[in-house]
Amino acid sequence: MPDLHDVVDEIAEKMGQREDRGAVATYIPQLARVDPRHFGIAVATADGTLACAGDSEIPFSIQSISKVFTLTLALGVVGDSLWRRVGREPSGNAFNSIAQLELEKGVPRNPFINAGALAVTDVILSGHPPREALGEILRFIRFAAQDDSIFIDEAVARSEKATGFRNAALANFMKSFAVLQHPVDHVLGTYFHHCAIAMTCRQLALAGRFLAQSGRNPDTGFSLVSPERARRINALMLTCGHYDGSGEFAFRVGLPGKSGVGGGILAIAPGRASIAVWSPGLDAAGNSHLGRMALEILAHKMKWSIFGD
Amino acid sequence: MPDLHDVVDEIAEKMGQREDRGAVATYIPQLARVDPRHFGIAVATADGTLACAGDSEIPFSIQSISKVFTLTLALGVVGDSLWRRVGREPSGNAFNSIAQLELEKGVPRNPFINAGALAVTDVILSGHPPREALGEILRFIRFAAQDDSIFIDEAVARSEKATGFRNAALANFMKSFAVLQHPVDHVLGTYFHHCAIAMTCRQLALAGRFLAQSGRNPDTGFSLVSPERARRINALMLTCGHYDGSGEFAFRVGLPGKSGVGGGILAIAPGRASIAVWSPGLDAAGNSHLGRMALEILAHKMKWSIFGD
Amino acid sequence: MPDLHDVVDEIAEKMGQREDRGAVATYIPQLARVDPRHFGIAVATADGTLACAGDSEIPFSIQSISKVFTLTLALGVVGDSLWRRVGREPSGNAFNSIAQLELEKGVPRNPFINAGALAVTDVILSGHPPREALGEILRFIRFAAQDDSIFIDEAVARSEKATGFRNAALANFMKSFAVLQHPVDHVLGTYFHHCAIAMTCRQLALAGRFLAQSGRNPDTGFSLVSPERARRINALMLTCGHYDGSGEFAFRVGLPGKSGVGGGILAIAPGRASIAVWSPGLDAAGNSHLGRMALEILAHKMKWSIFGD
Amino acid sequence: MPDLHDVVDEIAEKMGQREDRGAVATYIPQLARVDPRHFGIAVATADGTLACAGDSEIPFSIQSISKVFTLTLALGVVGDSLWRRVGREPSGNAFNSIAQLELEKGVPRNPFINAGALAVTDVILSGHPPREALGEILRFIRFAAQDDSIFIDEAVARSEKATGFRNAALANFMKSFAVLQHPVDHVLGTYFHHCAIAMTCRQLALAGRFLAQSGRNPDTGFSLVSPERARRINALMLTCGHYDGSGEFAFRVGLPGKSGVGGGILAIAPGRASIAVWSPGLDAAGNSHLGRMALEILAHKMKWSIFGD
Repeated sequence: MPDLHDVVDEIAEKMGQREDRGAVATYIPQLARVDPRHFGIAVATADGTLACAGDSEIPFSIQSISKVFTLTLALGVVGDSLWRRVGREPSGNAFNSIAQLELEKGVPRNPFINAGALAVTDVILSGHPPREALGEILRFIRFAAQDDSIFIDEAVARSEKATGFRNAALANFMKSFAVLQHPVDHVLGTYFHHCAIAMTCRQLALAGRFLAQSGRNPDTGFSLVSPERARRINALMLTCGHYDGSGEFAFRVGLPGKSGVGGGILAIAPGRASIAVWSPGLDAAGNSHLGRMALEILAHKMKWSIFGD
Repeated sequence: MPDLHDVVDEIAEKMGQREDRGAVATYIPQLARVDPRHFGIAVATADGTLACAGDSEIPFSIQSISKVFTLTLALGVVGDSLWRRVGREPSGNAFNSIAQLELEKGVPRNPFINAGALAVTDVILSGHPPREALGEILRFIRFAAQDDSIFIDEAVARSEKATGFRNAALANFMKSFAVLQHPVDHVLGTYFHHCAIAMTCRQLALAGRFLAQSGRNPDTGFSLVSPERARRINALMLTCGHYDGSGEFAFRVGLPGKSGVGGGILAIAPGRASIAVWSPGLDAAGNSHLGRMALEILAHKMKWSIFGD
Repeated sequence: MPDLHDVVDEIAEKMGQREDRGAVATYIPQLARVDPRHFGIAVATADGTLACAGDSEIPFSIQSISKVFTLTLALGVVGDSLWRRVGREPSGNAFNSIAQLELEKGVPRNPFINAGALAVTDVILSGHPPREALGEILRFIRFAAQDDSIFIDEAVARSEKATGFRNAALANFMKSFAVLQHPVDHVLGTYFHHCAIAMTCRQLALAGRFLAQSGRNPDTGFSLVSPERARRINALMLTCGHYDGSGEFAFRVGLPGKSGVGGGILAIAPGRASIAVWSPGLDAAGNSHLGRMALEILAHKMKWSIFGD
Repeated sequence: MPDLHDVVDEIAEKMGQREDRGAVATYIPQLARVDPRHFGIAVATADGTLACAGDSEIPFSIQSISKVFTLTLALGVVGDSLWRRVGREPSGNAFNSIAQLELEKGVPRNPFINAGALAVTDVILSGHPPREALGEILRFIRFAAQDDSIFIDEAVARSEKATGFRNAALANFMKSFAVLQHPVDHVLGTYFHHCAIAMTCRQLALAGRFLAQSGRNPDTGFSLVSPERARRINALMLTCGHYDGSGEFAFRVGLPGKSGVGGGILAIAPGRASIAVWSPGLDAAGNSHLGRMALEILAHKMKWSIFGD
């Protein structure tokens, strides 16, 4: 097995040289300004190693990667009854599609498309004002990463709110089917803010460790979720974590992963490592172009694919 | 780790006692006659163990499980250019849906829905008359299982042909977009026949070993596919192998698998085992009800989930 | 030809005796309280006759019938450039469907489904604050009916606003495609208010006369629209005026018409008469059950079908 | 009112000069060879006048216009029970769409889209071998036109059969839902042949007279259908006769009409005239480009719009 540090360094160097970087998302004005030449990677292994390279210390907007943490939190709040509010199947559609929602009477296909994440946010709002719910989400991520410096980028949150008509359409549509229980504005406000959390690759890799280690945070020994729930969240990341590019990601990378439109991806090698990559340019399905490529090389070199050696 | 033979025996006993068995598929008259009380299981591990229980020696119609073998064959014939003819994404639809095919101009979403398998069959027909193409498919499966007694059930094939209007619709639809290159009748005839292959759980578990062992057949040492291709076929089974129940199967069982409407499922624990289960009653998504339940228990007891311990 | 007064009286009597009345719309709480036993009818002919029967003097919420007047107004404001914002084809879907809007990138199929009417309202808002735009709509209807007592039922408008999540979804969705130019709240507020206009059958039949008389208001001699535009609005009412029940209405009644979820229908016999009916119970497609039946009898008895004697 | 002969001559002259002619349908090879510069028109009025101009004596493939006659025949055979097999609503989709058929379990939206016409053909096959059913269709059209020289173009029928995969998909799809009762091959064969009937504009205008004259054939005085049925067929032509261009046709022309992919259109001015136009170039919705334009001018000049003067 090659040395992880060498592999990570080599990947960062290779990615730094590539010219094909995809296109930075433009629909959130604040994200459109990010320099597409960034590339960062961080790997936190089960034995405590942390390997970082490239722009691994620059915070980026985690966007939809936050959905992994809100799903974990919501399952903690309401348990498996969550699945009455949201499905567990790949959607076969874009991340913000509304047509399927109409066919299926407002129940989103899975917690990782926008509609599903809005339903999950609605669950977290139960019994809390939005500000407290948001605080809980942030605390959970800080605790998982063991890092209290993680913050919400208010400028990004405002930018999303000002232009988030598609998400407002999804939320109002679900509300019309009573799939959301809280005021649409509360759900959207909380959602826009948790998507605007900024993290570095290092912080994100550390925050994901519980999914690689049967639910346990290795720093504290504290279980964030049961081993079974960790497995199931990983399964959902594999089948649904990259929208309508999930099949492709499983085919090429072979690891559970969740991408964000900010260009980050959190990937899990169960029992082995939590991995964060970041490169702002996106492919046609809205996933980080170099990020996926980097993970493909990493999984191949380290023989970490869950589908065989 | 518990003893595999004990686990397999226990599962067969438990399943034998259950009353909830789903409904036997009725749309193929020949399959509708099968007794829903059957349950069989066979597990072939990487170390050469073979554990069988229940009706593991009764041949059943493998139906869509044949798509795993035709996909493997077609990749051998045309390599990755196959992916110009068929996609790699979950469909978010039923196994025989035609609406998506219209939106996507006749290109099926993946090789495991009916439309995709018809496109794969069309590839195998290249340069062969249908009878020879069918012979090649059968030879491949016999070779993988190392068992020349595996046969095609002509009565089932005829029954499918007489009632296979939905598949005829799919084939004609793809033909109208020139996605099929051979005459519709040739493609359908070959498809109905390879779906009508009959195998026992034991034979099927043996035939699937190459996917659990990096592409190698352990009896002969001969590689049927490269390790990378084996991983990728496993990835496709995970994301697309159970139609619109694929997310659920990954969530509960955590293994790549392919189901057939005859009630069989082939599941792969990469590096560990090839598993075949059979119980004719189906759930709402068209997958074996007890089969999935049995695999859930097996994966749990043996800690074989690819998503973590 | 039978006497119109006799026919109208006979219809009102017959309808009063029927037990099958459909179901009152419940999704707008304020409308759910209306007594389903109401039936009113008014016919204003080209020669100046006015025949009324039943509850023709009770105001009801015209709801989507207002879309005929806003379309007329918007065409007056921007002319045929309106058709860059909204289509002219039947939708083949329910009045509040959003799936088609996704396929067609936010451009509504026609001005009589909710999405299309929101786009029309957006056009009327050009250069006006919402309050003024609303005033203009109300003035137009009062002028057409020559009756300044027509009013907006604020309780209904508030009720719609509080529960109009589906319309908010449509508006936000179109806004995300930049099909709406004004703030979503302005469009929705104006829309909810013009839908909440209350009219009696008599007032509505009078207001529709310009469509039966080549665009001219017979009281004033003033042309509200050109003859060609009146014909075209009638054509749209025929093909799109009853949502996914438009084909059925044309088949049975044979007159251009526009229904509202409050149970009213405005129908036009070109060159002959403007007709208003009202009965709150709706059929499965959301159109007044007895209203359509009454129009079917009227068109038959008076030989007013546009499709032949 | 201008003189009809003058108007018709003027239209033929004007159309002959236009350069924008749309594109000749290419998906039926035999039709692709037709010269796009043809234009013919014939008008048969209720008072017995026949006005022809341009290529009104050249036979063309009537294609989907045959659906008007098969619908009339099928209604004669089974009466209103036909509507259990096919709907009466515009489809909001292309003429050969299959997606809606899936949503609606194999029941076509209306008798004028391909799927609906196949269901109608299936009804006509009841109790007949295909050859006889076809004979009956041809006899009906010959009788309506009072012209026994009307024939089936076998080369066109063969061409459609060899390339009609899309129609084969539709027929097999409906068969899978048991919406068709006869063998798929019988239905398709009969359908391809009645679409291949060749007629001149003059013959077609004469054949359509019964729809303009309350169901009566003026030559014989014999009623082909009741007045009510004639009205209803006209209503269906208005709402569904031009596929997803039906709204546009109603908006611009204001007459019930049925187009064919061969470039013909049959239009009805109820109580006034039966009109046939032919020009092979099609617009984006698959309807004759110059044909529609000619009808728009004719309806305008003669004040024949059913939607007002």
